[in-house]
Amino acid sequence: MMFPTSASVVIALLMGIVGGAFVIWELRRVLGYDPGNETMQAIAKAIQEGSAAFLSREYRVIAIFVVIVATVISTFLHWQTALCFVVGAIASAGAGYLGMYVAVRANVRTAAAAGRNLHEGLRVAFGSGSIMGMAVVSFSLIGMTVLFLMFNGNPNQLTYITGFGFGASSIALFARVGGGIYTKAADVGADLVGKVEQGIPEDDPRNPAVIADNVGDNVGDVAGMGADLFESYSGSIIAAATLGAALGAKSPAFIGLPFLVAAVGIIASLFGIYMVTGEEPKQSENGNDSILARIARFIGQYVIKIDENASLDDLLKALRHSVWGASVIILGLSLMAVLISGVSFNYWLVILVGLVTGNAIAYVTEYYTSYTDKPTQAIAHATQTGAATTIIQGLAVGMMSTVFPVLIVAAAILLSIWLGHKADGTMAAGLYAVALAGVGMLSTLGVTLATDAYGPVADNAGGIAEMSHLPSEVRHRTDALDSLGNTTAATGKGFAIGSAVLTALALLAAYVTAAKIDNLNILGPTMLPGILIGAMMPYLFSALTMMAVGKAAHEIVVEVRRQFHEIPGLMEGTGQPDYATCVGISTESALREMILPGALAVVVPLVVGHVLGKEALAGMLVGTMSSGFLLAVMMANAGGAWDNAKKWIETGQYGGKGSDSHKAAVVGDTVGDPFKDTSGPSLNILIKLMTIVSLVFANSFGSGWFNF
Amino acid sequence: MMFPTSASVVIALLMGIVGGAFVIWELRRVLGYDPGNETMQAIAKAIQEGSAAFLSREYRVIAIFVVIVATVISTFLHWQTALCFVVGAIASAGAGYLGMYVAVRANVRTAAAAGRNLHEGLRVAFGSGSIMGMAVVSFSLIGMTVLFLMFNGNPNQLTYITGFGFGASSIALFARVGGGIYTKAADVGADLVGKVEQGIPEDDPRNPAVIADNVGDNVGDVAGMGADLFESYSGSIIAAATLGAALGAKSPAFIGLPFLVAAVGIIASLFGIYMVTGEEPKQSENGNDSILARIARFIGQYVIKIDENASLDDLLKALRHSVWGASVIILGLSLMAVLISGVSFNYWLVILVGLVTGNAIAYVTEYYTSYTDKPTQAIAHATQTGAATTIIQGLAVGMMSTVFPVLIVAAAILLSIWLGHKADGTMAAGLYAVALAGVGMLSTLGVTLATDAYGPVADNAGGIAEMSHLPSEVRHRTDALDSLGNTTAATGKGFAIGSAVLTALALLAAYVTAAKIDNLNILGPTMLPGILIGAMMPYLFSALTMMAVGKAAHEIVVEVRRQFHEIPGLMEGTGQPDYATCVGISTESALREMILPGALAVVVPLVVGHVLGKEALAGMLVGTMSSGFLLAVMMANAGGAWDNAKKWIETGQYGGKGSDSHKAAVVGDTVGDPFKDTSGPSLNILIKLMTIVSLVFANSFGSGWFNF
Repeated sequence: MMFPTSASVVIALLMGIVGGAFVIWELRRVLGYDPGNETMQAIAKAIQEGSAAFLSREYRVIAIFVVIVATVISTFLHWQTALCFVVGAIASAGAGYLGMYVAVRANVRTAAAAGRNLHEGLRVAFGSGSIMGMAVVSFSLIGMTVLFLMFNGNPNQLTYITGFGFGASSIALFARVGGGIYTKAADVGADLVGKVEQGIPEDDPRNPAVIADNVGDNVGDVAGMGADLFESYSGSIIAAATLGAALGAKSPAFIGLPFLVAAVGIIASLFGIYMVTGEEPKQSENGNDSILARIARFIGQYVIKIDENASLDDLLKALRHSVWGASVIILGLSLMAVLISGVSFNYWLVILVGLVTGNAIAYVTEYYTSYTDKPTQAIAHATQTGAATTIIQGLAVGMMSTVFPVLIVAAAILLSIWLGHKADGTMAAGLYAVALAGVGMLSTLGVTLATDAYGPVADNAGGIAEMSHLPSEVRHRTDALDSLGNTTAATGKGFAIGSAVLTALALLAAYVTAAKIDNLNILGPTMLPGILIGAMMPYLFSALTMMAVGKAAHEIVVEVRRQFHEIPGLMEGTGQPDYATCVGISTESALREMILPGALAVVVPLVVGHVLGKEALAGMLVGTMSSGFLLAVMMANAGGAWDNAKKWIETGQYGGKGSDSHKAAVVGDTVGDPFKDTSGPSLNILIKLMTIVSLVFANSFGSGWFNF
Repeated sequence: MMFPTSASVVIALLMGIVGGAFVIWELRRVLGYDPGNETMQAIAKAIQEGSAAFLSREYRVIAIFVVIVATVISTFLHWQTALCFVVGAIASAGAGYLGMYVAVRANVRTAAAAGRNLHEGLRVAFGSGSIMGMAVVSFSLIGMTVLFLMFNGNPNQLTYITGFGFGASSIALFARVGGGIYTKAADVGADLVGKVEQGIPEDDPRNPAVIADNVGDNVGDVAGMGADLFESYSGSIIAAATLGAALGAKSPAFIGLPFLVAAVGIIASLFGIYMVTGEEPKQSENGNDSILARIARFIGQYVIKIDENASLDDLLKALRHSVWGASVIILGLSLMAVLISGVSFNYWLVILVGLVTGNAIAYVTEYYTSYTDKPTQAIAHATQTGAATTIIQGLAVGMMSTVFPVLIVAAAILLSIWLGHKADGTMAAGLYAVALAGVGMLSTLGVTLATDAYGPVADNAGGIAEMSHLPSEVRHRTDALDSLGNTTAATGKGFAIGSAVLTALALLAAYVTAAKIDNLNILGPTMLPGILIGAMMPYLFSALTMMAVGKAAHEIVVEVRRQFHEIPGLMEGTGQPDYATCVGISTESALREMILPGALAVVVPLVVGHVLGKEALAGMLVGTMSSGFLLAVMMANAGGAWDNAKKWIETGQYGGKGSDSHKAAVVGDTVGDPFKDTSGPSLNILIKLMTIVSLVFANSFGSGWFNF
């Protein structure tokens, strides 16, 4: 007997609800921590207000976009797709808002907890990250499964649900681009005047842009990253289900499998999360935790040991073990899922390929961006001959760092297609396998996103500790947590781009099926122009976002200079800086500058699809995917490596802080800022959004204006 | 009656001989100029010896490569292909050597002529460039036509001749990469110690690396650029002839047409060249010039007016008019060629598309890199907030500058395919048209390369004027010529990459035919891995070349510092610097560092073709073409814009020389050096070489190790 699709979907819905319950439970736990003294709370309040103000204004802009697009969809396609689009947008925005809501409250609690000991600090910050992680996966899964069940029996069921992915992508794009511009404009602006011109340290409360800088960490790295992966997660499941539907007799099992894998991923992620946050007598005594939590905590006790003298490596190991623990559980449970689905064992191997791929890319990213390894040290070495050689070496490292991720992803695609092809004898099964590998890779998202979203919380905690003059050992502890966050952020970016490529490829395959393209010859008349235009899009997009950061940072610089000039006693600490104006400028400029790149990503596929035809559009998507992948990896890794080269010099290498080498490293770090936090990560979403727009409108494209 | 192929080929051969005669005649004319005073001659001699030493050592390394590859070819393919390979390599190397031979003699003569007036200086420098330009086109045309006639009647005739393109590509790669590393290592090394540490001006004779720097201009920008375009020129003709052979009944006419277009291009180029170098009583009186020369000179008198106060714009106009004049002639004569060939009028439109494309790309490049336009001025503006914003803005400008070249090339491909398709009703005719557009674009090469290869001669002349303490008005004149050279170099790079894409696409189409690939589905099992690996190659290649420049420059820095430290009286001008050691270091490191990237470009296509199969190889070529095109344009234009932003500041903007803005601009310029002169232009050849390797070995690839 074949396992029915709806049973898989219901299981996924139930697991989504379990994840949602964890979110509420963990939210109460994190907010129950001591929020620190009054100074700390006042600073945290400013960050909370700035973040909330930005996000609500950003969401208002996005709401206009959502209404316009929903109208277009319901006019030209179906109201059902429009409904799914709106639900996808709301679910993604909701997860992002919640993640940010807790992050700007966990930061001050992390600072306070770090006043007690390192593990307490990690537990609060990681708990906050886990709320984001679980909110993303459970909101996505609940949204999709409810819509799926609502349209059950309708033959266009899956077509409608692509709208959910489109809604999620739209939010993701604006959140990543808007948040990315905000965070780096504030960061670069604050540094250029504060550190360089006035010679005051990072996070100094006298700097008028310091609150904007801290707000930026939350709106960019928490809400932006969350929306990005919400989209990959939803997209990979939608693509797999859509491709599964085309596989003939066994398709009910194929459609259900990605939902089942996602469902077991939630259990596994919860396990991974407990491994880090566990071992807490207070919670286990009040009796409201599960057997799973007790087991995870029990294992965690032996695997994860974080004492006061924990090195960066120890902390990293702790987080890595939690991800690995989750992966092992997924492998076990998804084997069961494959068996009860009645599909070939090969598909379990495909899930394994996905999991290994994610971890392998993360490993390579770590190698290229960690200052304990050669590439970053080579950049530090190049600082001796000045800023120019620092930049050249950093760009070269970034370019070199693309080699292995490309080979890994290429191998994953080839292996998945091969396994799927072997199992069911068709190329369609092969492409389904690629989508399933993407689902497998993202099945641990609940815990991997937790390790990622925890970083900005630790970063903020350090800022709050600095601004409220806490004892230096507190700052040391938050610095340790922050360094860890930098590494997990870099690996998280590698993970995000890797999953974006697999998801986009699967969505592309779904598009080709939906658009009824039968001849996709690479030498077809419009194909090569399409590929070239597609390859150009990431460059145009990056140029726009980098220039936006430059422009916005310039406005901040002018304002900060004005305040230092006009507010009496600011440098002496007797005058009060006007934080709100800087927050306002960052908000205004980020919202203004995100419109054009965002609109381009939606409009260009539609134009190309109509003018050059549906084949050229497929070519364009391939061009954007390949060129965007490369550029994104290059930018993310160069940015991460420059950042850490500077950090390495700050440990005393090549003259340490204040030396000429350090000055050159600061130039590298500043160039890397928009690379790794604005332009680079936005490309993931560009790739996916362009593909999903094409998929949603697939039926509307013809053979174009050129008549061959 | 159809015009026979062999008649077209014979006409091309004759025109090639005419071009060759011009080379000899012009060589005598340029060398007949006054070589200046003894100091000047001594400096020129050092440059001559350094250049000759590098080139002969480089050619020795390449010779080993050529012998190995020729053995492989004759073992696995045919001895005929191996012969063509060797002839192609020798012809390209010969043109490169000749171009450099005259450049290192024209430099000192240009300096002396600039002592008289500006137009005289232009005439010598441009004359030297025109020798290079005509040597490239005529050596290529003579080589190919002789081989064609030699194998006449043999059904594999055209297959063999692809070997000529392979030979030319191999030389091009090593010349571009080796020369590029040499020139930038010497340049960066000389500047870092000379300008930055010791505070002595550019081209100061006390700098031990100054001769190496001047040698670099010749081996990189003359020999390297020449070999690059030799390859594009040969490749476009070979591709067009090969694709023409597949067009059925009319194929003799189709095969002959590209040769005819190339033949008329020589006449047109000669005309364009005379427009600049003409109006010279001495030469017209000795009676040994043609009617063509008299007409060109007559027109040139009215069109080109260069007086002492000529601005950069006037000089630019002079060169532009000569290219435009040549283009008009080509259009007229190629209409006749199309008519006598008996093919559709559409193919004349295709040639027009090619010519317009080349000029349009050149125009866009000029806009993005000239300091009279906004993009470069925006970089200069960004220098006010330091080196980091200078770099961010420059990279953004470089990325933005890819948009129009991509749209232009995409439109050219689409239009060409459409015109060819309309004319003969098949996609094969469309792809032939793309190749023919490439031939059209490159038909003016004799004169466009002259405007390009003249730059380094003017640059060297300035250096010689500086080192031999000529009066300041001489230096002003050579500076005017040099500025002009910077702009033509940037436009030349745009032209080189545009033609590389068209040529590579045509070669790819020839490969697909030769490898008998019938299913090139973009979603085929191995296609996407192929595309991703292909897209990665330019990043790997650029990373290697940029790191090579960094490493070699570092060695120069160490040596120059040693000399300043150990040679007594060097700074005071009483001690004699040891130029030869710096020349030796540059030579050694360039030759050492060019091996790996060069070998990769040849080996990777063979590995992918055998392991992943011939379809994956086609995908890889598409990936490399699209990704390489974007990266090359970005790097070339960012580099050119940084260079000119610095020059603009040196005219007095933002505080002028020595200001903080200028320091930031110097960082940008230094980063731009390997961008625009090493990594960026090398990518053209990477694209073409990988494609031609695939074409030559097309028959040897199967379906790969993965059995689907």
